Amino acid sequence: MNFASDNTYGAHPAVLKAMVDCNGGAVGAYGSDPVTEQAEAAIRDLFQAPDAVVRFVATGTAANALVCAQLTPPGGRIYCHDDAHIETSECAAPEFYTTGGKLVTLPGADGKLTPDVLAEAIRIGAGGGLNGGPNAMVSITNATEWGTVYTPDQVAALARAAHQGGLPLHMDGARFANAVASLGCAPADVTWRASVDVLCFGGTKNGAMAAEAIVFFDPELAKGFDYRRKQAGHVFSKQRYLAAQMLALVGDGLWLDLASRANGLAKRLGDAVLAAGGQLLVPVESNAVFAAIPAAADARARAAGAAYYSWPDKSAEGLDPAPIRLVTAWDTPDAAIQDFAKALIGQS
Amino acid sequence: MNFASDNTYGAHPAVLKAMVDCNGGAVGAYGSDPVTEQAEAAIRDLFQAPDAVVRFVATGTAANALVCAQLTPPGGRIYCHDDAHIETSECAAPEFYTTGGKLVTLPGADGKLTPDVLAEAIRIGAGGGLNGGPNAMVSITNATEWGTVYTPDQVAALARAAHQGGLPLHMDGARFANAVASLGCAPADVTWRASVDVLCFGGTKNGAMAAEAIVFFDPELAKGFDYRRKQAGHVFSKQRYLAAQMLALVGDGLWLDLASRANGLAKRLGDAVLAAGGQLLVPVESNAVFAAIPAAADARARAAGAAYYSWPDKSAEGLDPAPIRLVTAWDTPDAAIQDFAKALIGQS
Amino acid sequence: MNFASDNTYGAHPAVLKAMVDCNGGAVGAYGSDPVTEQAEAAIRDLFQAPDAVVRFVATGTAANALVCAQLTPPGGRIYCHDDAHIETSECAAPEFYTTGGKLVTLPGADGKLTPDVLAEAIRIGAGGGLNGGPNAMVSITNATEWGTVYTPDQVAALARAAHQGGLPLHMDGARFANAVASLGCAPADVTWRASVDVLCFGGTKNGAMAAEAIVFFDPELAKGFDYRRKQAGHVFSKQRYLAAQMLALVGDGLWLDLASRANGLAKRLGDAVLAAGGQLLVPVESNAVFAAIPAAADARARAAGAAYYSWPDKSAEGLDPAPIRLVTAWDTPDAAIQDFAKALIGQS
Amino acid sequence: MNFASDNTYGAHPAVLKAMVDCNGGAVGAYGSDPVTEQAEAAIRDLFQAPDAVVRFVATGTAANALVCAQLTPPGGRIYCHDDAHIETSECAAPEFYTTGGKLVTLPGADGKLTPDVLAEAIRIGAGGGLNGGPNAMVSITNATEWGTVYTPDQVAALARAAHQGGLPLHMDGARFANAVASLGCAPADVTWRASVDVLCFGGTKNGAMAAEAIVFFDPELAKGFDYRRKQAGHVFSKQRYLAAQMLALVGDGLWLDLASRANGLAKRLGDAVLAAGGQLLVPVESNAVFAAIPAAADARARAAGAAYYSWPDKSAEGLDPAPIRLVTAWDTPDAAIQDFAKALIGQS
Repeated sequence: MNFASDNTYGAHPAVLKAMVDCNGGAVGAYGSDPVTEQAEAAIRDLFQAPDAVVRFVATGTAANALVCAQLTPPGGRIYCHDDAHIETSECAAPEFYTTGGKLVTLPGADGKLTPDVLAEAIRIGAGGGLNGGPNAMVSITNATEWGTVYTPDQVAALARAAHQGGLPLHMDGARFANAVASLGCAPADVTWRASVDVLCFGGTKNGAMAAEAIVFFDPELAKGFDYRRKQAGHVFSKQRYLAAQMLALVGDGLWLDLASRANGLAKRLGDAVLAAGGQLLVPVESNAVFAAIPAAADARARAAGAAYYSWPDKSAEGLDPAPIRLVTAWDTPDAAIQDFAKALIGQS
Repeated sequence: MNFASDNTYGAHPAVLKAMVDCNGGAVGAYGSDPVTEQAEAAIRDLFQAPDAVVRFVATGTAANALVCAQLTPPGGRIYCHDDAHIETSECAAPEFYTTGGKLVTLPGADGKLTPDVLAEAIRIGAGGGLNGGPNAMVSITNATEWGTVYTPDQVAALARAAHQGGLPLHMDGARFANAVASLGCAPADVTWRASVDVLCFGGTKNGAMAAEAIVFFDPELAKGFDYRRKQAGHVFSKQRYLAAQMLALVGDGLWLDLASRANGLAKRLGDAVLAAGGQLLVPVESNAVFAAIPAAADARARAAGAAYYSWPDKSAEGLDPAPIRLVTAWDTPDAAIQDFAKALIGQS
Repeated sequence: MNFASDNTYGAHPAVLKAMVDCNGGAVGAYGSDPVTEQAEAAIRDLFQAPDAVVRFVATGTAANALVCAQLTPPGGRIYCHDDAHIETSECAAPEFYTTGGKLVTLPGADGKLTPDVLAEAIRIGAGGGLNGGPNAMVSITNATEWGTVYTPDQVAALARAAHQGGLPLHMDGARFANAVASLGCAPADVTWRASVDVLCFGGTKNGAMAAEAIVFFDPELAKGFDYRRKQAGHVFSKQRYLAAQMLALVGDGLWLDLASRANGLAKRLGDAVLAAGGQLLVPVESNAVFAAIPAAADARARAAGAAYYSWPDKSAEGLDPAPIRLVTAWDTPDAAIQDFAKALIGQS
Repeated sequence: MNFASDNTYGAHPAVLKAMVDCNGGAVGAYGSDPVTEQAEAAIRDLFQAPDAVVRFVATGTAANALVCAQLTPPGGRIYCHDDAHIETSECAAPEFYTTGGKLVTLPGADGKLTPDVLAEAIRIGAGGGLNGGPNAMVSITNATEWGTVYTPDQVAALARAAHQGGLPLHMDGARFANAVASLGCAPADVTWRASVDVLCFGGTKNGAMAAEAIVFFDPELAKGFDYRRKQAGHVFSKQRYLAAQMLALVGDGLWLDLASRANGLAKRLGDAVLAAGGQLLVPVESNAVFAAIPAAADARARAAGAAYYSWPDKSAEGLDPAPIRLVTAWDTPDAAIQDFAKALIGQS
């Protein structure tokens, strides 16, 4: 019963098999190998984006922060949600890699930015003069940090606000698979067709060992990126192992199968919460559940061995109702869901 | 009638004279000259801090950002007020020089941090793990960005909260002279005796041409700072001209005379606002007035040629009552105050 | 017949198996998992260094550059060999992560620094004043970029020169296994017993997929390092996969077996060069051969399909004798050596 | 008899007068003032470059390093002479501001780069792949660090080599005035007409207090520069005082008069060296003399109170003949020259 994070689970056997399979023989280093080529092509195909520039790194923090650096001039303002991962959970990697970008955080219900709030912030930023710094970029997360999902229309509306201010739109897709599985749309629909400029397409939380793809839909924006990535120490000499992971995921739709399963488990967790007299803080749209449950249910679940975070964190411990976050992963056992549901209501 | 900023006015004749007077002959470069030595000593004396390390730079942004860099480890969290100059008005210089520090802004009435809010934020930060980054430092501004002034007791309470969390306390003293003139205390009382670790002691807004002193009350904290300053291009080869400015200001109490005058003018502006049916948004404690005045009074003042900012900025234009900021400087003409007072109420 | 780089070959089956074996179940993220704990302990044991701080990253560039950042104050001078990997082959990652460290390169035969040259450079650097920047650290590579190996005594002599100047000594051990296999000493003998302060202990070139261990023999030097690594995006959320690789290598001596084999193959390549009328530019002491061979032999080998670099690079192509670099890896096929030897002398 | 540096002397009275004269009244901050406008225009006029973007900073290190940052992508290679000031004397400011640019230093007689050596280095750099980093820019110094002067033709040849490799050419003109005075050409001839892209036009060493102009002949290259300068803390709030200095210098040819005088004094120092049996290490073409003089002459001069550097530095002390550097400034007293000449040959 581990619902602490989708980082706590492992890698899918097909991913590991792909790594083992590409192991033999000598190939070019630093990305000049056939597996990397294939994986880049597979992702361009998946997105129906033949001109996209695709690159792989091992961590989501690296992916997001390097993209921020790529898009942000000195002192540039990066607009994102108050709860954006790049703001709260990356140890200021975006500030580091941009060498001094300024994250400007904006409120929004259910973890989502809204076009009006964004447009107004961009307008104010544009008037900030030297002291305020230049507007640089907009970053949204899909699925969001609250497990909700932007629709293609919502993304397009934000892209419009960004582009009207001259800013590119970045999508942190650490849980992009969960978003697409939830939406049932084509990957292109919620990215470049909705005017997203750069996507960080996460593998790690969805069955990879450690692999993220950066997709520059506008190749111009990738200029000089390979050196930036190398200088940061994020180019693997044996790059094929990164590529093989993503290839295994996207090759035959595995990525969507895994995300769908995790999403489905989360739905069931949400139902269990409601059945136990709890309430959902935001709709369950991907693989996370934010809920307030009776303190007694919370206590029972923890006593039964369930691992999950109080939300917001430690300060919420002991509250009644207790705010909690539950996260499912591609390989969360079915039994864990059932056991948790029972524990909540005191069945054994 | 220019109340836009204390940056719009010039340098005091005594400051310019000091620069001219130190001009003759050949002296050591990069700070190894007698004027620099004298000025450093004068500031140590002023603060009764014989062990303090004193250094000069030309801009307040450089002073603050270099000190932040000095005190902040990788990814470090810098606690400051929502309206801190380092957050709003330095084009992300602190993020740049810290190479990725994270400014954590906190609310507080009248532009002031409070010990409880600060202590709680430090507590939360301490639990943020790798993702949240380490706690680094606390920065307060005195006089604040709202023209209010921290008392020695208030500073000491904040220092306690900071130090209990293991964090040094930095004071942005761009308008330190105005604060001390307002408090009527010794400079030491509101700095190291109140446990401030590093002060940026501003000259530029108070009659200097371009000069700020950085005062490390704990010499340990200055370790390696000279190289940092040099690498940033903030060491003048002809350092004596920076030093001479500060020496002229502190040598014979000029700095307090100038600040007192500016503070007095602000008081009179505040009275004028009240007389015109306006109200003060915060108490007038130094050389700034934040007020809401009838739109008609605002229009009259501007028609008469008064220059000042709507606050908050452009979005406030045309509101009734109009929120405004008025700033006085050491050499704001008396007549400007009188003319403004008359204009507000429609006298000519 | 691929002798281009030890990066072109894959991962050892035992490494891949260890990754697969640690895959099941949910464990703590970001390094708080049992495999990471075990691997750190195994490395401390291997080095008989119970107090050492051990951390894992995926690339050698990250390892070296993050350590440089850890040891270098603003503007600091980093002393290394003219041909050091950190100078020639990391896309200025050390300069990036140190945010402006200055690599000071020094000559030395066979790719090795000598104590006299180093001590003199440190002495000059110490007198460089603000303009020159402070002395920061010394970095040596073992095995060197020329495939030669520093003995424990040679390392100790360099450490003495470094420490007399107050500088810590870093060892880039991308091919540390090859050095130890060549020396036949204990890992401790050529590191902390010879006064090395920090070692980057490479796995990637020696059978790992992508894994390097950073070993801080002085735990004080590791202060704040975890945040630095996180901010750089070099902390894996599923850290166990990094750790498992190193654990597989050091667990039962596999690392030395692999390195010994590669070293032995290189010796045979060296013999083949001599047999073909070529000469060795430096002694063959690890897994690299630098040689000058008759142009005809060079042409024959390439015609037979051998892949290796002209040295120095393209400018050397077509020279007679042709300077070349040959690198062996843990899994270079025996047949490749034989085929190359034959091709050199025109046998088929 | 101070010949240590042109930084040891003061500011010209006309410069100080200009600063005093612009002191009155309230003007726009951060460069939106009439003096700044005038000074920018004056420099555009001086260079017959109506489209140039001109900006002011207080130190040469800031000017050079900010320009490097402007022109250098991640990991970029900056080609310069072995003895370039940006390499030897700026505490790694270029590496800092470029956040990791790599200075690639090249040999050349008399402190000058040659087109062949430069073109070959650029060619090699272009083949360096990810590991080597991208080619970024070329920087030359005129007058050079050895006091020699590039002619317009020499500059144009270097520009050709740079541009053929796609690299912009930066000129560090800390002593640009001395170069132009020496050449007797128009400022445009040795800059944009010779295809220089950006010039750092120094004032500080030539009678300013602390002022340098950055001249972007290609306005495209200045994109975003104002924010970069602000974020670095190098925008003065009272910018007029920087501008006034440069305006005073260029307004009526003062800059050339001062440089001519310094150059003339250096010629006389050179003659004195020859008369004392010394020899010139490089031709005296601007305001510096590099010479080897009999140890006895050296001892006599120092005994008489002459201040100057042994060259190279401390390691040269006591050599016979003694290598020395003598630098003159705009206000080096005539008597100092005479006294030195006499001291060298033992007259009193």
